[in-house]
Amino acid sequence: MKKEFIQPGDSPAGGGGVSGENEQDILAGYMFDILDSLSQYGAGAPGEGITRLLYSPAWLEAQLFLAERMRAAGLEVRFDRVGNLYGRLQGSEPGRPVVAAGSHVDTVKQGGKYDGALGIAASLAAVSYLKECYGVPKRTLEVVSFCEEEGSRFPFAYWGSGSVTGERDLQRYGSIRDGAGVTLQEAMEQAGFGRAEQADPLRRDLGAYLELHIEQGIMLEREGADIGIVETIVGQRRYTAQVTGETNHAGTTPMRMRSDALAGAAEMVVALERMALEEGPPLVATVGRLEVSPNTSNVIPGRVSFSLDIRHESGEKLQGFCGRMSEAFAGLAAARGLKLELQLQLATAPAPMDAGLGGRLERLCSSRGISCRRMVSGAGHDAQLLAAVCPAAMLFVPSRGGISHAPEEYTAPEHLARGTELLAALLRELAYGDNDEQKGER
Amino acid sequence: MKKEFIQPGDSPAGGGGVSGENEQDILAGYMFDILDSLSQYGAGAPGEGITRLLYSPAWLEAQLFLAERMRAAGLEVRFDRVGNLYGRLQGSEPGRPVVAAGSHVDTVKQGGKYDGALGIAASLAAVSYLKECYGVPKRTLEVVSFCEEEGSRFPFAYWGSGSVTGERDLQRYGSIRDGAGVTLQEAMEQAGFGRAEQADPLRRDLGAYLELHIEQGIMLEREGADIGIVETIVGQRRYTAQVTGETNHAGTTPMRMRSDALAGAAEMVVALERMALEEGPPLVATVGRLEVSPNTSNVIPGRVSFSLDIRHESGEKLQGFCGRMSEAFAGLAAARGLKLELQLQLATAPAPMDAGLGGRLERLCSSRGISCRRMVSGAGHDAQLLAAVCPAAMLFVPSRGGISHAPEEYTAPEHLARGTELLAALLRELAYGDNDEQKGER
Repeated sequence: MKKEFIQPGDSPAGGGGVSGENEQDILAGYMFDILDSLSQYGAGAPGEGITRLLYSPAWLEAQLFLAERMRAAGLEVRFDRVGNLYGRLQGSEPGRPVVAAGSHVDTVKQGGKYDGALGIAASLAAVSYLKECYGVPKRTLEVVSFCEEEGSRFPFAYWGSGSVTGERDLQRYGSIRDGAGVTLQEAMEQAGFGRAEQADPLRRDLGAYLELHIEQGIMLEREGADIGIVETIVGQRRYTAQVTGETNHAGTTPMRMRSDALAGAAEMVVALERMALEEGPPLVATVGRLEVSPNTSNVIPGRVSFSLDIRHESGEKLQGFCGRMSEAFAGLAAARGLKLELQLQLATAPAPMDAGLGGRLERLCSSRGISCRRMVSGAGHDAQLLAAVCPAAMLFVPSRGGISHAPEEYTAPEHLARGTELLAALLRELAYGDNDEQKGER
Repeated sequence: MKKEFIQPGDSPAGGGGVSGENEQDILAGYMFDILDSLSQYGAGAPGEGITRLLYSPAWLEAQLFLAERMRAAGLEVRFDRVGNLYGRLQGSEPGRPVVAAGSHVDTVKQGGKYDGALGIAASLAAVSYLKECYGVPKRTLEVVSFCEEEGSRFPFAYWGSGSVTGERDLQRYGSIRDGAGVTLQEAMEQAGFGRAEQADPLRRDLGAYLELHIEQGIMLEREGADIGIVETIVGQRRYTAQVTGETNHAGTTPMRMRSDALAGAAEMVVALERMALEEGPPLVATVGRLEVSPNTSNVIPGRVSFSLDIRHESGEKLQGFCGRMSEAFAGLAAARGLKLELQLQLATAPAPMDAGLGGRLERLCSSRGISCRRMVSGAGHDAQLLAAVCPAAMLFVPSRGGISHAPEEYTAPEHLARGTELLAALLRELAYGDNDEQKGER
């Protein structure tokens, strides 16, 4: 069999790769086939991208397609109670914790082909291929297709991985409604999940979680790097700000007698950007949503509501910045006699990825002559939840133009193949390697 | 008969009024009765104000009610082809141009009881009372209830007075649609207008137009003045600005790599306010409407559209300010690499009111001990269109808290009565006075 494939460290010095072209092509071919097939589910008209909202018919068809592919690869297939899908390759040393790899199957509305899907396709391709090449692993390998990560149907995210780690549960989230008034519980049941006899999503047997994902940013492309090794997923705070002034006639109210909520909010938007630039990278601060009331051209706005999204890899710096922001906003509102309400909507701590796994990835890149860089993930991912219960690693491949959450999302085939190769190589080390290589195990 | 009523200049020096309490009360009683009755048409549930959109059933009922009241007062009643309503008291010197007074019968959505309605009620009360007191006038008097001024149903304003002066016509405006897709022509026909045999709205026989209106601003209240005599109705420019940047991920796009349309638009909003404060009164500049795309909390806005409403009594200063604003905005956009499109939506020139009529009003106030101030109207009114074809005058009465276009719109009864008294006094001078008092005639 193809034993020479993805063997680490056996390349001639300076060699451009380890395995024969042929073996890499076979692995990549598996991945492309799954990725392309998966992109049919939820596809809209040309230009409309892919929409697979949690528990929708397109979502269910995608999960059933993946289950079928897992079965065809000889994996044991199961869904848990919330609709997470697993394909399992039982190891020969059953006492040892499971090595899992995957990502999420749901998409944003009119999203792209790669976000989430790549991580599932690459993991299933890799495990299928490892099984063919090396047979039974020492540690059990699992491919996971998490049911939800995006928060695009219900107003919260990480339902899939959060159910696995215990961060999310039905008791708290089951009654939350989507835009059409359907509860999570109802939607889940309509899709065939939520039944008592189905497996509890909570897991305590995981020993590692690996996730390959598109970067969704422009750093790798700008620096010409093939692979990003994530050191930390940023912490995030989301607020809603409400500024209240006084609605008045745009023609008859002199400038000095106004209490203009939009002028005040605009000053806050400008101040936030200036503060973020002063703070410097990796802090980012964004006002993405802003709504004006009554929003009529000849009426001075009496109320403005806007969102705040602040991220940093350091929890302490994130907290410090948000404190200074609150103070600055309060000062701007007071100077204008406006009322300001700032409501914290979400606070996640920064999630460091496992240093041991990161080191392995770096060595695997180096031995293959693949250019990589350590980086911070500004986007949230399932791996940040898994990192709370087992060593976790994330690999990024470049996103063309940094574009994501849009039909134009694109990653070049050679980057997809290189990411899949690295994922497979690390899975092999962890599941087939010698005991002394399992230092990351806990 | 009550000849002593509203006789100018016959008061004892420093006297608090001319006419007996009784006569003033009778005139005010007429006005209150019409105003209160009119407010029943289009009245919503408590707190929802009054809605009489052009050609709606409530609007038609209001016009028919007013026609009935005009008839009952012994006036000749007619509608023109677009639905303007006239009540005419024929003068004894038929060659001389008509003295008209009135306002508009339509309202904004959920508007107040006084905007437009006061001017009609006061004019009808005054002409009825003058007829009772003095019989046939020398010059013909007309009460007018213009069909539309607010621009609340169709996306343009001054349909009533503009049809009278020739500024608006069916050929250009008939095919414009309301929010439900109904054209102006269709709506007009459904209300029973637009028929060829109905009178052409265009008039060339007007010699003066008087309009009593609520201030819709806070100046009179602040200064404790009873009456505002409008010198000029401001010129106005409305623009739509569209700022285009680049939609991007709020987490993965560093601050320095952003092309944030909202941050740019916010800078423009702040700059506009600063420039307007520097320019000083009576310039006002307002961003009342602002829309963000895609308007999602975790996405950097790629596009922002907003409205600009700039007003000044001097056409030259208005133009100069708008030019500097365009330059400033272009500079802000260029500095950020944003695309800016600025589209002029509306440009009206300042409309000076007739100085002779203004002087008469001032003398009438003075002889009655009524406190008045000359002022600029920041809001647009029918009088600004009429001013293009005949001498026009506007009187303002105070608006409590400056609030208008809302159910909370309120003017105290004594102010309503005082405004009506002045209107009647000026109508009497113009229509019943000696020839040598008609210097404003043209």
